[in-house]
Parts: sequence; C-alpha cells; structure tokens
Amino acid sequence: MTDSAPPLDFYFDFSSPYGYLMSEKIDAVAARHGRKVRWHPILLGIIFKATGSAPLTLQNPAKAAYSIHDFERSARFMGIPYRHPSRFPLATQNAARAYYWLDGQDCALARQFAHAVYRALFVDDQDISAPETVIEIAAKLGVDRSNLENALQSPEIKARLKDEVDNALKIGVFGSPYVVIDGEPFFGADRLPQIEKWLETGAF
Amino acid sequence: MTDSAPPLDFYFDFSSPYGYLMSEKIDAVAARHGRKVRWHPILLGIIFKATGSAPLTLQNPAKAAYSIHDFERSARFMGIPYRHPSRFPLATQNAARAYYWLDGQDCALARQFAHAVYRALFVDDQDISAPETVIEIAAKLGVDRSNLENALQSPEIKARLKDEVDNALKIGVFGSPYVVIDGEPFFGADRLPQIEKWLETGAF
Repeated sequence: MTDSAPPLDFYFDFSSPYGYLMSEKIDAVAARHGRKVRWHPILLGIIFKATGSAPLTLQNPAKAAYSIHDFERSARFMGIPYRHPSRFPLATQNAARAYYWLDGQDCALARQFAHAVYRALFVDDQDISAPETVIEIAAKLGVDRSNLENALQSPEIKARLKDEVDNALKIGVFGSPYVVIDGEPFFGADRLPQIEKWLETGAF
Repeated sequence: MTDSAPPLDFYFDFSSPYGYLMSEKIDAVAARHGRKVRWHPILLGIIFKATGSAPLTLQNPAKAAYSIHDFERSARFMGIPYRHPSRFPLATQNAARAYYWLDGQDCALARQFAHAVYRALFVDDQDISAPETVIEIAAKLGVDRSNLENALQSPEIKARLKDEVDNALKIGVFGSPYVVIDGEPFFGADRLPQIEKWLETGAF
C-alpha cells in the first residue's frame, strides 16, 4: 500500500439490490480519484434486528411495490442489468463467509467472486443462500471446492463475519449500501453523485 | 390550460426536509420540459399511521443521526440553504389548509406561500405548526389575516385537505416527496436526476 489516500469502506449485504448497484460502480468512482475500496459484506438480518428495521419489500405494500419498481428503474438509469430475484430477500452468510475466506488469500479473487455472487442473484436469479451455489460460483473462478466447503464451516471464518457485522453496527451502519470516506458516511446507491463530489472536493 | 402535456403531481408534507429540497427544484425542472406541477401538501402523520411507518428522525438512533446529517449535506449538494429546525417533526395541518384555501383563489400566490412556509421552517426555524405563524407568513404576501383565520377553521377547507390525504394514500403515496409523472412514481429528492431523464426521454 503506497497510496497516500486511505481506502473507502463499502458495507453491503449480498441480498441488497441497491448494494448490488453500488458494487458495479464504486471501485471505478474511487479509482478516478486515486482511491481504493475495502469491501465488507455484512448481514442485514442482524443489522435490522439490532436497529428495529426491516427490508423495503417487507414494509407496507405501497412501499414494497414502489421499491421493486425502483430497483429495476434505478438499474436501468445506471446502465446495470437487473432482474428482481424470485427468492427475496434471502440469507447471505455463506456468500459473506466465502468472501472473507477468499479475501484472506487473494483480494482480487475475492472481488471477482463478490461481483459473480451479486450477478448470480440479480441477473441470473440463482439461490445464493445455498452453500452449493456459492461453491459453484467460486469453483468457476478456479477455487477448490472442498477447501471452500470446509472454510464455510470454519470457526475462524464465522468469527470474522461476526466481527465485521459487530463493527458495522458499532460505526452506525443501519442499511446497505453504506460507504464511508474518511469518516463521512453515505447511505444508498443514490448517494453516488455526492460520493463523487466528496472525492473531488475533499468535502462540500 | 393550453399545454398539451399534463402536469406533474408533487405530494409533500410541509415538515419534510427532502420535500423542501424538492420544492426548490421541481417547478424549474418541469418547466425545462414544458410541464407544469400541481402541488399537493399532505399530512405524513396520517400517511405514516396508515402505512405503519415513522419519520426518519424517530427511527433507530443511527438512522436518525445519519438523516439529519444527510438533510444538511444534501441541501449543500443541491445549493439550497438549510438549517435543521429546533422543532422537528411538527404538525402541518394549518399550513396545508392555508395552502388549499389560497390555491382556490390564486394558484401563483399559493405557490409563493408554500415556498415561504418551507423557508420559514428550514431556513428561519419558525414554528409553522402555529396558526399565528402561518397567518403571519401569508399576511406578508398581502393576504387578509381574518379571512385566512376563518378559512383555517372552515369545514370545506378541512374536507379538502382530508380528501387530498385520502387520495394520496389511494394512489400509493407512502412518504414525502413523492412525484408522479404520467402515472410513473418517484419517491425522494434524490430521484430528481431520474425525473429529469424521464421528462427528457418520455421513459427509460
């Protein structure tokens, strides 16, 4: 790490539509300003339980209907393919654990894996809650299946994910995506223009 | 009304920070595309009760703190003055009733009044829940005080506001601001870029 500017922190859940939209843009936006991004998959189920919140599609019917419409329209607006999953929301601890295990070995591979998981869910409608699906996605990137299968059950990896979720709660993360730049928090894919301006000007 | 394109509908509560931000932009955005805007003040208290929701600042502490920070930063981003009110949220039925009464007589004056109410709350920290404040704001625009004082208690005006709130609920409004363009709904001041693109392209 010879970069002088510290990396951005990007908190997201693998079942978050707006997290997916952010994931397709944030690295390039940061790179334009000479910054890198640390990715932190977290579990919104735990965050929502701790903060007394709920997924958009499980709130009132008007908001739920609007949200699904907005996921699709926001994706078109941002030029990103999107098909609302038939299983939604769904559990993401296997995907998140796999991410942290891969990240410990090869952070570029972990990033590729994260993109592949998001696209499997939001483009190809795969059941990424299943360990088999997560393992299959990783195997296509050259990862050894049985090593990953073991890793998904390892106490160290489970503890790493728990620590990440605990830390997210501690710094005030209440939803996904949540991006922190030099201590400044931005919630939602629709804050990308503000993120760009913040990176450009240092603050505003 | 000789315009061929139908007006946009803009639903908002006078205590909504993002509604205020939208109010400072929506007429000009619509005008750039030859469209007018119908303004509909509504009561979020009733909308939230009906939909089981709550103001952002009365949700969990992390979200509440972020929201106040985001109101201020979003205002700076949009070039709009903003000072978070010391009374917040607050009741807005007097402001909304005054709006509908004025609108029945002079829609341009009603629009001026709406801007003045929003700025009284979000720039000058006035207590716009009080009928005296609402009457004072209107009087500065040349409105007769006692006529307005009577209007605030008139059954017709109370019924008009109730009808507007009922209609908003019926078409799916669950928060403020909520803009409808030819049947297409947009929730939040951060949907302005999508609104602009929609007006430009007819759809996307």
